[in-house]
Amino acid sequence: MSFSFELLKTDKDSAARVGRISTPHGTVDTPVFLPVGTQGTVKGLTSKDLKDIGAEMILCNTYHLYLRPGHELISELGGLHGFTGWDGPILTDSGGYQVYSLGKLRKIKENGVYFQSHLDGTKHLLTPERAIEIQEALGADIIMCLDECTPYPATMEYTMKSMELTHRWARICKDSKKSNKNALFGIVQGGMFVDLRRKSAQEIVKIGFDGYAIGGLSVGEGKELMYEMLEATIPYLPQDNPRYLMGVGTPEDIMNGVYMGIDIFDCVLPTRNARNGTLFTSSGKLVIKNSQFTRDGRPIDERCSCFTCQNYSRAYIRHLYMTGEMLAARLNTIHNLHYYVDIMSKMRMAILEDRFNEFKEGFYKDKTAAI
Amino acid sequence: MSFSFELLKTDKDSAARVGRISTPHGTVDTPVFLPVGTQGTVKGLTSKDLKDIGAEMILCNTYHLYLRPGHELISELGGLHGFTGWDGPILTDSGGYQVYSLGKLRKIKENGVYFQSHLDGTKHLLTPERAIEIQEALGADIIMCLDECTPYPATMEYTMKSMELTHRWARICKDSKKSNKNALFGIVQGGMFVDLRRKSAQEIVKIGFDGYAIGGLSVGEGKELMYEMLEATIPYLPQDNPRYLMGVGTPEDIMNGVYMGIDIFDCVLPTRNARNGTLFTSSGKLVIKNSQFTRDGRPIDERCSCFTCQNYSRAYIRHLYMTGEMLAARLNTIHNLHYYVDIMSKMRMAILEDRFNEFKEGFYKDKTAAI
Repeated sequence: MSFSFELLKTDKDSAARVGRISTPHGTVDTPVFLPVGTQGTVKGLTSKDLKDIGAEMILCNTYHLYLRPGHELISELGGLHGFTGWDGPILTDSGGYQVYSLGKLRKIKENGVYFQSHLDGTKHLLTPERAIEIQEALGADIIMCLDECTPYPATMEYTMKSMELTHRWARICKDSKKSNKNALFGIVQGGMFVDLRRKSAQEIVKIGFDGYAIGGLSVGEGKELMYEMLEATIPYLPQDNPRYLMGVGTPEDIMNGVYMGIDIFDCVLPTRNARNGTLFTSSGKLVIKNSQFTRDGRPIDERCSCFTCQNYSRAYIRHLYMTGEMLAARLNTIHNLHYYVDIMSKMRMAILEDRFNEFKEGFYKDKTAAI
Repeated sequence: MSFSFELLKTDKDSAARVGRISTPHGTVDTPVFLPVGTQGTVKGLTSKDLKDIGAEMILCNTYHLYLRPGHELISELGGLHGFTGWDGPILTDSGGYQVYSLGKLRKIKENGVYFQSHLDGTKHLLTPERAIEIQEALGADIIMCLDECTPYPATMEYTMKSMELTHRWARICKDSKKSNKNALFGIVQGGMFVDLRRKSAQEIVKIGFDGYAIGGLSVGEGKELMYEMLEATIPYLPQDNPRYLMGVGTPEDIMNGVYMGIDIFDCVLPTRNARNGTLFTSSGKLVIKNSQFTRDGRPIDERCSCFTCQNYSRAYIRHLYMTGEMLAARLNTIHNLHYYVDIMSKMRMAILEDRFNEFKEGFYKDKTAAI
C-alpha cells in the first residue's frame, strides 16, 4: 500500500477533522499523536508496549540515528522497521531541528548546514539532498524536507531570508527523492509574521507534497502567538492532505491544534515528563515524588485503563522513582502515552459525533485541584 | 496454603533432586533460581515480564526495603505482594548481608548489628528479633534468620565465635517469630572449616527450621573450597527440607550445587550482567558492546525462545546499549533471566528422567568459541 490520506469528517462547528492516513505499514486514524523514539526507541518501551498502549505511528530522529548507528547500517538491517522491531508507520524528521539546536557547533549556508557531532566533534554537512538520502535509507513511511527552523525572536528580514532558504531546500528535497516508498511532507515556516506564514504556506503548497507540516512554532513565542500563526497558515493548506504541527505539545495545545484543523502532532512532553515523574491525569498533573503519595495505594489515575494504573499504586511508583529504579520511567511512560493516545481517540470520537466543541470545553472542567 | 516441601525424586547417580515447595502464594518447582528484586523490583521488569519469563519466586532485600520505603509502609499497603504487584512466592533475606557489607559503617555486638544507613548516615540496630519483625511486616513467603556472614579469610577462632553467634541468633529468630504465614529458614555458617560447617549444620538443624540455607560461601574463597564446604555441609541437612545456597551463582556453580543436592539459588549475576551487557547463551558468554555485533542481525541466541530473542537483533540491542538506552537493560535482563529459568527447568527434567549427569556433562560441551 502506498501513501494516501482520506478526509472522513469535518466538525460542524470548527475546523477539527477526522481522517485516515494509509501507509505501507498500516493505517493511522487522525488526529494522531506520535510518541517520539529519538534513537530508534521510545525510551524504556518495546514495540509491544507501544501497541498495547494504542500508539499508531512513532517518530524517529534522523540526526541521532545518522550519527549512531548510522543510516547505512539501519538500511542493511531492514530499515527502521526491521531494525527497531516496530512494524507500524514511522515518521522521521529531517535532522535539521537537532542540528540547529547545536548552536555554535553549526553554520547554515546556501547548500546546507555544516555541523559538528555533539558526540565526537566530527564534521558533517547536512544538505537537502542528503537529508532525503538518509531518510530514504532509514525507510520511514513519512519523511520530512530539510528546513531552517527560524529562531525566535527574529527580524522580519531574517525570517524572510530563512523562509526563502526553506522554500529552495523544499524544492531540492522534492527533486532529489528517489524512492516512492516514503511520503514526503513539506514544512511551512515564516516565523511570527502573518504575511510570511501565508506566503510560506502558498509556496510550499505550490511545490506540492504528500502532506504539510507547520514548523518553527512552540519555540518560546507563547501560546497566543502560536495560535495566531496557525490561524494565518492553516487556511492556505489543502483540505486533502494531512497537516502536521511539529513538536507540539501539551494536551491543551493539541486540543486547540485539532480545533484549528491539525491532523498530526509529536512531542517529547509525555515521555520526558514521565521520566521526570510528572504524570497527566483526568484531574490534572500529578508529581509522583510529592510526599503526599508516599502511602497512597491508589493508581495514578483511578479513571485510567493503562497497564500501569491497572497494576501499580502511586506509593509503589513513588518508591521506584525515589530509589532511581528504571521501572518508574517505564511505568510512567506507559501511563503518559496512554493518556495522550486516549485523548486523541476521544477527540476523534467527538468530531465524528459532531460534539467536538462540547468535548473541548468540558475537557478541563473536572480538573479540580484534588491531586 | 501454608508452607511445605515435597521431595519428588532424587537422581540415581547424584544427590540432585526435584521437589516442590508450597507457599501461601503458589508452588515452586525445585531446583529453582530466584531473580533478585533488591528494592522491590527486579530492575526494569514488571511482574508480568517475570511471569512471562517463567520466574517462580523472587528475592527481595530487607535492608534496602527497611530503609526505603520502610517495612511499615509496605505492610500497610498489603506487604510486598500488594506493594510490588508480584503475586507469586517471595523470599526475603534478613538484611544481615547488606549490613555487613557496609564495612566501617557497622559494628557487630552480641545483641545485633549497629549500623549507619548508606543513604543518610542515620543510626540503626538490627537484632535477630528486629530482623524477624521487619520480615514479618514485609510478608514474604520465606524469611531468613539473621546471621553473621563470616568474612573470608578468617581464623578458625574467629569463625567459631562468629558461627556460635549465628547459632544464638538463629534460636532467637525462631523464638521471636509471631506469624505462621512465613516459613523461616536457618542459615549454616562455619567459614572454610569442614568441622565447623558440619557442626553448624548439626546445630541449626537441631534448632529446627522450615528450610536450611548455606551462607558465607561465594565470598572470594574460590570454587574448589566452596564445593568442599558444600560437601561438608549438605550430608548433615535433612532430606525433607529445602536447601538454599545463598548468593550463588554462575550457571556452572548452580549445576554443581544441584548435583550436590541444593534446591534453591539466588544471585544478582544474571540481572547485573544483563545491565552491563554480558549475556548468557547456549554457546557461551556474549558481550554485546563488542564491535563484531554492530551489524549482526541475529538474535542474542538463535536457540533461545525469550521475548528478546524472538523480537530483537544483536545489532539493535548493541545500539541501545551503546547509546545508553534503558531498553537495553530490560531486554538483556529478560534474556539472562530466561536463560537461568530455562536451565533450571532442563535440570529438573533431567533429574526426573534419571539423566542428570549426562545433562551436566553435555552442558558445556557445545559452548564453542563461535561467539
